[in-house]
Amino acid sequence: MTVRVLTGVTPSGTLHLGNYVGCIRPAIQKSLAAGTESFYFLSDYHALIKTIEDPDRIEKSRIQIAATWLACGLDPNRVHFYRQSDLPETLELDWILNCLTSKGLMNRAHAYKAKVEANERDGEDPDNNVTMGLFCYPILMAADILIFKANLIPVGRDQIQHIEMCRDIAARFNMLYGNGKEILPLPEALIDEEVAVLPGLDGRKMSKSYDNVIPLFEGGEKALKEAIMKVVTDSKLPGEPKDPDSTSLTQLYEAFATHEEREAFRKALREGLSWGEAKEIVFNTINGEIGPMREKYEMYMREPEVVEKILIEGVERIRPMARELVAQVREAVGLRAFRALENKAKKVKTRKGKCVVKQYREKDGLFYFKLVDASGNLLVTAGGLASGKETGALVKQFKAQGMAALTGVFNELAESVSEQQVQEALRELAEE
Amino acid sequence: MTVRVLTGVTPSGTLHLGNYVGCIRPAIQKSLAAGTESFYFLSDYHALIKTIEDPDRIEKSRIQIAATWLACGLDPNRVHFYRQSDLPETLELDWILNCLTSKGLMNRAHAYKAKVEANERDGEDPDNNVTMGLFCYPILMAADILIFKANLIPVGRDQIQHIEMCRDIAARFNMLYGNGKEILPLPEALIDEEVAVLPGLDGRKMSKSYDNVIPLFEGGEKALKEAIMKVVTDSKLPGEPKDPDSTSLTQLYEAFATHEEREAFRKALREGLSWGEAKEIVFNTINGEIGPMREKYEMYMREPEVVEKILIEGVERIRPMARELVAQVREAVGLRAFRALENKAKKVKTRKGKCVVKQYREKDGLFYFKLVDASGNLLVTAGGLASGKETGALVKQFKAQGMAALTGVFNELAESVSEQQVQEALRELAEE
Repeated sequence: MTVRVLTGVTPSGTLHLGNYVGCIRPAIQKSLAAGTESFYFLSDYHALIKTIEDPDRIEKSRIQIAATWLACGLDPNRVHFYRQSDLPETLELDWILNCLTSKGLMNRAHAYKAKVEANERDGEDPDNNVTMGLFCYPILMAADILIFKANLIPVGRDQIQHIEMCRDIAARFNMLYGNGKEILPLPEALIDEEVAVLPGLDGRKMSKSYDNVIPLFEGGEKALKEAIMKVVTDSKLPGEPKDPDSTSLTQLYEAFATHEEREAFRKALREGLSWGEAKEIVFNTINGEIGPMREKYEMYMREPEVVEKILIEGVERIRPMARELVAQVREAVGLRAFRALENKAKKVKTRKGKCVVKQYREKDGLFYFKLVDASGNLLVTAGGLASGKETGALVKQFKAQGMAALTGVFNELAESVSEQQVQEALRELAEE
Repeated sequence: MTVRVLTGVTPSGTLHLGNYVGCIRPAIQKSLAAGTESFYFLSDYHALIKTIEDPDRIEKSRIQIAATWLACGLDPNRVHFYRQSDLPETLELDWILNCLTSKGLMNRAHAYKAKVEANERDGEDPDNNVTMGLFCYPILMAADILIFKANLIPVGRDQIQHIEMCRDIAARFNMLYGNGKEILPLPEALIDEEVAVLPGLDGRKMSKSYDNVIPLFEGGEKALKEAIMKVVTDSKLPGEPKDPDSTSLTQLYEAFATHEEREAFRKALREGLSWGEAKEIVFNTINGEIGPMREKYEMYMREPEVVEKILIEGVERIRPMARELVAQVREAVGLRAFRALENKAKKVKTRKGKCVVKQYREKDGLFYFKLVDASGNLLVTAGGLASGKETGALVKQFKAQGMAALTGVFNELAESVSEQQVQEALRELAEE
């Protein structure tokens, strides 16, 4: 069976080289793995939690992040790439899951608890600045996962609890409605223990909060070059032997170079390559990988309609799956089309494999009965008598004598049903 | 302006005569009021909160309640009659409202607080048996109301707080995105001070919890008659003068009788009408009103597809309104189609009424510019030069000399644009 891997990408501002090396590049490589069906979605309903007061930022981030992933090689023909907010079906599942999730479970969510603790430390109301979006988020995440019956969710350690909550919720659903079956498969967290961490200009982890980032696309080639020129090194002169591990430049290079290139680079530094030349090499290598992507990125940013089209096509391809799941869940909890009462009765019969004679009163006020076979197909309608008692007697005769008993009263074989089929059904009925 | 009145009906089991007199009959009368547009919906998403573990009950209740309201005279051609769960658009609005509602607001909801207090009294965890559905419900109710910009919400006193919460949420939305306008109108609670309370068999308020109810349709005419025969009276004999106010029979009768009939009934009792005869009169009068409805009810229950069709038609008629509101809200919070960035820029131009010359680089690597008029229409595209600087000089010449400046470089008038229009646009540009 194909394993379904689902990854949410939060649209939150522009990206740096650390995001590319640590997250985007490996995710895209994994998206091509055999035997997996990959789902990548921009979690923009989620992004609203933090940026509800800044619509223009949401708008811009969504385009930037989508353009980035496409430019970096995510292939919308090989993976499902879509926006969360183009699939409102998720919110229908979300509401239903809300109704079977205890509030206590949400009270224990790490992200919420951390916020409460911080508020308490600051002498604020515990729920200060907590929105319902933040509080309810783990259930939405569960819906994102369960709507596609995803099996593996690549997440950071901080997200493991959310996957456990999703499993709890799915298990409760299966317990209530599954009749022993796993309607909603329990997903598993996929923790990558070897996340590549790229150092920033100053050697610390590259992070916006350290202000040490090298932009991925922003500012173009020029900004990339300028940033690399600013990587901290010692002040050894050209010709002097240098320690390759004395600067984050080497690690930056190694994230983009082949094994041979790495060896050669280290050797050259030890043999006196100047920092200026070294930075030129690093820039050229990184730009060699990033440059073509940047062109694509800029093309997408100039023509966001192209990205729009890709995302809409992406979501339309998987919407039927989502609809089917939601339909199944609605059926389970009782939100059924009003004809369902009858259908269900038929289904039960089918499952039990029993023929049935059913007596009923028509709008004309008269009493009728029908014979239905083990598969729920109508075989005979008959009756038209003034009382239920008479009709009961007629049914008894019919069961014993078959069609012959119906002489003189209204009777009708269903389309393409033979008298022989009726006889067989009656025999089955007698044996039950 | 037409006032929009929105009423939610929770599908929760079979109904009795008290529900009919106190709620259904007056609601249906009001639905016919001039100058109002009425929305009636089965709140089945809401019903899941209580009955998530009993799908068959949900299923049955939904059909019964819909059939009851239709049978009692709700006219689906004059009011909007629909199921909450057929309008998942509401849940999209709901999620967005979640992101701008503080958790503190929900902590203060009466229904939730009452549950917490009861748990604490019983020595349980405060959130024992509280589901997220229960906790989040006031936001869903706000979404139900706001999605149709409803003005008046007929509710019992216990629901006033929910309307206030809805107003808070709408006000916050308007504050953030309205730019001084009321995108989401604030609804008002409509409290009916004179709710008719029907006494039950024993004289106390008719209520399932007192086990003193007279069924509305359940059990048919027979059950109605049997129940009325059980209404408690004193043991005065036929011929003895009776006090009309000594039994709830009189109040039951008066809920269905004309003024003249009421007077005559009281007079007859005082003059010695037997209780048996009195009950016969009461039964006949009530059955005179209820009987024809019961027939319709039974017809609907036999043919639930008919009800299904009515509800689907009902929701499809108003779905465009809901979609429009959701689209407006999505736009406001930044969930915009990716072409929107450009459209928006155009819109700004339109508003300001300015002609614009915009310089840009094409995929071929060359530099171009375009002239756009005050309404955002493209007039001219030109350029194709190797540097931005040269192109800047060309734009300057073009602004001064018009089309003549473009001899020798690529230039193209937009479809059906004349040189004169270009001249006019350039003149406007010069004046700005």
